[in-house]
Amino acid sequence: MIASTIAARDAVRAMKAYTLELRDAATKLNQNESPFDFPEALKREVLERVAQRPWNVYPEFEATRLRAALAAAYDIPAQSLLAGNGSNELLAAAIATFVEPGRRVAFARPTFALYEKLITIAGGEPLPIDFDPRSGELPLDRLVAAVERDGASVVIVCSPNNPTGGVLARGGIERLLKTGAVVLFDRAYGDFDDDDSLPPPDDRLVVCSTFSKAWGLAALRLGWLCSTPATAAEIRKAKLPYSLNIVSEETAIVALEHRRYRDANVAAIISERERLYAAMRELDGIEPFPSRANFITFRCRDARATFDALCAGGILIRDVSAYPNLDGCLRVSVGTREENDRFLTALENLV
Amino acid sequence: MIASTIAARDAVRAMKAYTLELRDAATKLNQNESPFDFPEALKREVLERVAQRPWNVYPEFEATRLRAALAAAYDIPAQSLLAGNGSNELLAAAIATFVEPGRRVAFARPTFALYEKLITIAGGEPLPIDFDPRSGELPLDRLVAAVERDGASVVIVCSPNNPTGGVLARGGIERLLKTGAVVLFDRAYGDFDDDDSLPPPDDRLVVCSTFSKAWGLAALRLGWLCSTPATAAEIRKAKLPYSLNIVSEETAIVALEHRRYRDANVAAIISERERLYAAMRELDGIEPFPSRANFITFRCRDARATFDALCAGGILIRDVSAYPNLDGCLRVSVGTREENDRFLTALENLV
Repeated sequence: MIASTIAARDAVRAMKAYTLELRDAATKLNQNESPFDFPEALKREVLERVAQRPWNVYPEFEATRLRAALAAAYDIPAQSLLAGNGSNELLAAAIATFVEPGRRVAFARPTFALYEKLITIAGGEPLPIDFDPRSGELPLDRLVAAVERDGASVVIVCSPNNPTGGVLARGGIERLLKTGAVVLFDRAYGDFDDDDSLPPPDDRLVVCSTFSKAWGLAALRLGWLCSTPATAAEIRKAKLPYSLNIVSEETAIVALEHRRYRDANVAAIISERERLYAAMRELDGIEPFPSRANFITFRCRDARATFDALCAGGILIRDVSAYPNLDGCLRVSVGTREENDRFLTALENLV
Repeated sequence: MIASTIAARDAVRAMKAYTLELRDAATKLNQNESPFDFPEALKREVLERVAQRPWNVYPEFEATRLRAALAAAYDIPAQSLLAGNGSNELLAAAIATFVEPGRRVAFARPTFALYEKLITIAGGEPLPIDFDPRSGELPLDRLVAAVERDGASVVIVCSPNNPTGGVLARGGIERLLKTGAVVLFDRAYGDFDDDDSLPPPDDRLVVCSTFSKAWGLAALRLGWLCSTPATAAEIRKAKLPYSLNIVSEETAIVALEHRRYRDANVAAIISERERLYAAMRELDGIEPFPSRANFITFRCRDARATFDALCAGGILIRDVSAYPNLDGCLRVSVGTREENDRFLTALENLV
């Protein structure tokens, strides 16, 4: 008989839960959401389609219609694509496919906290590469060295990087692939980068994208992954079947039919980001980091006091000061012009 | 530098992909779906609520409203509950919490194929316990022995069992818990059992339930898990955040407000199951297994020929003859009275 105290694995027990500070605020700039809701007419179109479908029947097994729509929109073979319940799910499936005990996984730090959790759950060894986010560039040379010198077999790249906003240098993905490592490229914020193209396919390259940010569909949980047909087939085995419900699938299909909304929203957000960045640089004691995403992370004199004061004024941003290499830092999502003005005015009054 | 051929883990490469034979059919009895669609008026209520919400904002971090509704409906503390994108997702999180290399996981065979895949992905050792499905009972003594004699530290129980329909004997969960093992109890079909109550909470007991079957909401991907607050907190760490989109969450809340629909549908399905079973027993060469679920598995003289002939007549059921211990077997979901009559007539004409 085994000990009656057996319970969760040590690896899980040692993990901290992913948490979010819940506060109500009139101006919500804490989760890198798009400030633009999905257009009312398109919502109605989705809901009308969904009302006509049976709810008691499982979704399509392979999300064939959505994958065909993505294939057409991005000029990628449908067999190279997987659709899922947010890009997180696909990232988790990719990590489950490539990471196991004995494999080291390199990533720049600070970055999206979920990677380290998923690596830990898979039993892999996280190999964080600390870098100074002020440069606006991810530490490519040191990520290469993590493979070539320190034996990492997988590299996770978030570019533009959450929560710093910096990017991998042009050609960086190709350079990482040359090391022989598997590269998981999270381009959740890739639509806001000057170069929003997808890198050429490679059996060792997995690219995760989302409808949450640029498409303004965070509530629907929609993500997609592309690689090669061979690698997509392996990752599909590690993914749960039927993970995309019919509403999310229909929403993505409608969204792809109306790409101009996304393009206009992305252009507006990029333009506001540049305006916000320039204005923040002018503020005494505020040091914004270069960003190609839909948020700006900045260092300030007293992060907690600034966060609390903004919050008291009805503006909720994210306190990232407890992240490694981000002491004294806060992150603000780019909102509408009015929201950004409200934030700038409040910040100006504080400094 | 590592070898350039590095790719998916051996464990994943060795796995077979989960597949489903896709065929169009007028009468669809192959996926254990409810034959009753969610009522039109309730669909409209859900969609109206969803239309009013922002789609660009993430769902509630902890699915607090839905968990409160479940807590009230099932008289369970909300902290003991998790909600997710189908019960599969929660089962996967539970396995990721308790299974790692070196841990053995016992389960009756044949059962839901996903368990073995998830155990394999987690690096655990599957310990299948073969049993004869004709008895209508899961092999409790041998599952206990798998822990006490063979060192399994986790037992997965699907009761009623998919795809055989049999159940664990009364008190079986308690007996398994006494061994000291962690028990993952998948009651996806539990609503169709005579005893549909939840077992008393225990730190080592995790119960997964779904809205897909009894509630007729397979298209929405809705599942929930209950344990104790301590264990739920551990599993929550292994679960992706925001996994439930706003439409599924709203649907579950509306469904729980109208429980009488579910109760009436469950009663109708149980009554049809009993009628179907009695009629199948009368057919020459057809051996149905006792079932407490919303499907009946049966042995026949030539499973493939029977499957194909039914299919040619517009009736799609599931060919489970390649499952271990199910040679010559097919599985039919319990449909509406008319669907079941169509199936019975077609089967009668074949034998």
